[in-house]
Amino acid sequence: MDGNNSDEEPRLGIEPETFRHAATNMVDYIINYHRDIHKRQTFPDVEPGFMQARLPKEAPDYPESWQEVFSDIETVVMDGMTHWQSPGFFSYYPATTSYPSMLADMLCNGISCVRFSWASSPSATELETVMMDWLAKAIGLPECFIHGGHGPGGGVIQGSASESTLMALMAARNKTIRQELSRDKSLRTHDIVARMVAYSSQCTHSCMDRAGVFALVEVRKLPVGKDGVMRGSVLKEAVMKDKDDGRIPMFVCASIGTTPCCTFDDLEEIGKICEEQEIWCHVDAAYAGAALICPEFRYICKGVERVTSFNFNPHKWLMVQIDCSAMWVRNSDDLINSAEVNPLFLHHKAQDSAIDYRHWQIPLGRPFRSLKLWFVLRMVGIEGLRSNIRRGVQEAKHLERLIRSDERFEILFPVTLGLVCFKFKHPGLLLEEENSLNERLYQKIHNDKRILLVLAMVNGVYFIRVCTGSTHCSIAQVNKCWNVIKEMAEQL
Amino acid sequence: MDGNNSDEEPRLGIEPETFRHAATNMVDYIINYHRDIHKRQTFPDVEPGFMQARLPKEAPDYPESWQEVFSDIETVVMDGMTHWQSPGFFSYYPATTSYPSMLADMLCNGISCVRFSWASSPSATELETVMMDWLAKAIGLPECFIHGGHGPGGGVIQGSASESTLMALMAARNKTIRQELSRDKSLRTHDIVARMVAYSSQCTHSCMDRAGVFALVEVRKLPVGKDGVMRGSVLKEAVMKDKDDGRIPMFVCASIGTTPCCTFDDLEEIGKICEEQEIWCHVDAAYAGAALICPEFRYICKGVERVTSFNFNPHKWLMVQIDCSAMWVRNSDDLINSAEVNPLFLHHKAQDSAIDYRHWQIPLGRPFRSLKLWFVLRMVGIEGLRSNIRRGVQEAKHLERLIRSDERFEILFPVTLGLVCFKFKHPGLLLEEENSLNERLYQKIHNDKRILLVLAMVNGVYFIRVCTGSTHCSIAQVNKCWNVIKEMAEQL
Repeated sequence: MDGNNSDEEPRLGIEPETFRHAATNMVDYIINYHRDIHKRQTFPDVEPGFMQARLPKEAPDYPESWQEVFSDIETVVMDGMTHWQSPGFFSYYPATTSYPSMLADMLCNGISCVRFSWASSPSATELETVMMDWLAKAIGLPECFIHGGHGPGGGVIQGSASESTLMALMAARNKTIRQELSRDKSLRTHDIVARMVAYSSQCTHSCMDRAGVFALVEVRKLPVGKDGVMRGSVLKEAVMKDKDDGRIPMFVCASIGTTPCCTFDDLEEIGKICEEQEIWCHVDAAYAGAALICPEFRYICKGVERVTSFNFNPHKWLMVQIDCSAMWVRNSDDLINSAEVNPLFLHHKAQDSAIDYRHWQIPLGRPFRSLKLWFVLRMVGIEGLRSNIRRGVQEAKHLERLIRSDERFEILFPVTLGLVCFKFKHPGLLLEEENSLNERLYQKIHNDKRILLVLAMVNGVYFIRVCTGSTHCSIAQVNKCWNVIKEMAEQL
Repeated sequence: MDGNNSDEEPRLGIEPETFRHAATNMVDYIINYHRDIHKRQTFPDVEPGFMQARLPKEAPDYPESWQEVFSDIETVVMDGMTHWQSPGFFSYYPATTSYPSMLADMLCNGISCVRFSWASSPSATELETVMMDWLAKAIGLPECFIHGGHGPGGGVIQGSASESTLMALMAARNKTIRQELSRDKSLRTHDIVARMVAYSSQCTHSCMDRAGVFALVEVRKLPVGKDGVMRGSVLKEAVMKDKDDGRIPMFVCASIGTTPCCTFDDLEEIGKICEEQEIWCHVDAAYAGAALICPEFRYICKGVERVTSFNFNPHKWLMVQIDCSAMWVRNSDDLINSAEVNPLFLHHKAQDSAIDYRHWQIPLGRPFRSLKLWFVLRMVGIEGLRSNIRRGVQEAKHLERLIRSDERFEILFPVTLGLVCFKFKHPGLLLEEENSLNERLYQKIHNDKRILLVLAMVNGVYFIRVCTGSTHCSIAQVNKCWNVIKEMAEQL
């Protein structure tokens, strides 16, 4: 009776041999999925509500067989998917993955441990700490962000860039409240918060607007130049005006790789102003951060040694599947002081000498996510990850050349990494007419369904975004994409 | 060249055949881990900082072999783990898992799609909608929480109960702001929020206190009776007093299965007061919600038809590994209105006729998590899940009997589900002395390392919490646990 419960129902839902067989099927399925993914339509033909008709109204009382479940994957789920791994997927930013990452999550799920305090999962806590240092060094972050450095800095794995931005904003807000109250105890918390202003640009990801709504901090969206860049001068002017008006500028979200156009805010200038004005400077490099693993791209982040917190998503372009968002702070006390609540049932002996990541994040617990960073960094290697980034950039440069060779189209922003933004032009059109033309071109491409990309807008100008570098993208696929774009444009 | 890139580096980090081989190793490893887990020490011998010495300071430039990575799992990671699946794990609440759940996450990770808008992953959105309905019906939630019902209610998968509580509180806060502003446009948002009060009990999970800090809403912690229950009368009195003081009572977090002692707030009374006073009533049933799958336990949730939102974690006791937190709302517009930001690049044709879950949550995107609910509900079946719950309850009842048979110990709260709370007594001791005695008993048990449990406190009384029902728990394991407790107590 010591742990073997073989006389009862299988403790893990099904017998181990059934699992072994099913897992073999699943591994084959995944390998074949990737081998044959170019045959799948990237965006599905289904209409909203399609799933209801394919499924019973209630869960079954008694177990169904693996074979029943397995065969439903294709018929119920797969033809209603947007295939992010499809070579025709040029949409959003990619969600790359890899076999090492999948292996790591098999282990994570197999042992099912929860990481919140050091005691709840010492290895999960400490591997995360070491992996965040490996990753910080791999992308060239300054020492102030390293756990094994000399200061209070370090990294944590969040679920998403949205959570990182929100955690940073709330930490900055609560730090500002503490500072203001220490100057004048008679102030009311809510009067302080009412005076706070956070800044981002028009091109910052929408999660910053949502963070403002969630944290109750007003977010001022600053204009970007025609080049999509937020500059120090614009920030400085806004900050000074707000100070004159009695407001408290306390947070800037600078984007390294903006969502619509992959441009890079001027971190050198912005960081300097934030230092001078004692403003928390958070960097959202959700997509572009991965490219910093290549030394030749680190210039996009010049000035990063001045910032307060930094975030990028390995789950976008670093072959680690969602979710894995890497966030570093210069001073972890700012996060901890913002959120520490410490009930008795979570006390443990090591709590003064070890990291309790629960204070760094919104959830109490998380799965053992650092395993996938460990597996990917070791089994792909820094050079392998660099090759993958460079391949995506070359694909984008190739598309840029193709588009520039056709005078009916215009490239809108510098093609630095894997994003190409262009518009279809027509002589003599007003801006609104040209916008409408590009919206129609986008709709035609979308309805054609051979490739998937998105429409975006900066400074009132509509354009089409093509993102290369996804798992199965290639120069040949980019050629195919360009042919679809031209063909659809000709039909307009 | 159509999608096959065989001449280049493997697109998924390693060759498919290496993955096939490695996955077979991993499946064997997981099966053996569970088969032999009773031989592992539940809580490890490591000290904070142990991992640094076991790992290089940086990631390797070039790939390491699968064999190297695989063999490090045991030496680097496993002996620094707290084994949540160990039969000696009686700590916190369990994090059960199952082979069907692991299979589903293999698929989720293999196809690596991101669910935020309907268009980004139609199947992931719709399967989640249907699974939340299956789950709502399986635990007997009223129709107002069902997508396929007649109202605006429905469910969403969050990452954690903490996120669910925070989303509910922020939605209630933003709804209250809108309501107050519609009454008097001259009000300032922050003055309204400053007047808001949320309520929970001393026994509510610490995530409620953190939600208050994050959302800037004052949380009043109400006393519970000796039985650990928050009653309507206590809430009513607090609400009335706050109203008299010009405050705005706007949120109650009622616990079904409190964290320290698994007691059940009086939802019937609390729900009624919330209805009368137009207060958002959120139910945190993180652990106990799974037990509602058994009709005989549904009485703990009497009054649930009155509440505004409801949350429980399938990743605790429903054989779905972390993370998977199920949240339902009576009116999804309250969530959406609280957080909707809609930039052009996320627009899609179906946005008015389909659910975009990104408005229901803090992150923009999430993995395809509903797959694991689908696999588990089908391959284990409702009856299989019920058996698993009942087994855990029987284990707790068995321990309760053992403890009650020994007059040196006292059971502190009714044993309803899988939690047993007891204290060690000694005649003539003051409360503080008895607390210290129980703290020492806890430390002795912890240092002995054969079993893992936690110390908790309610109304100033320290006690020890033993949670049964984990994956490999059994009556034999409970006997062993009781013997360790007695042995350690005798040494005091």
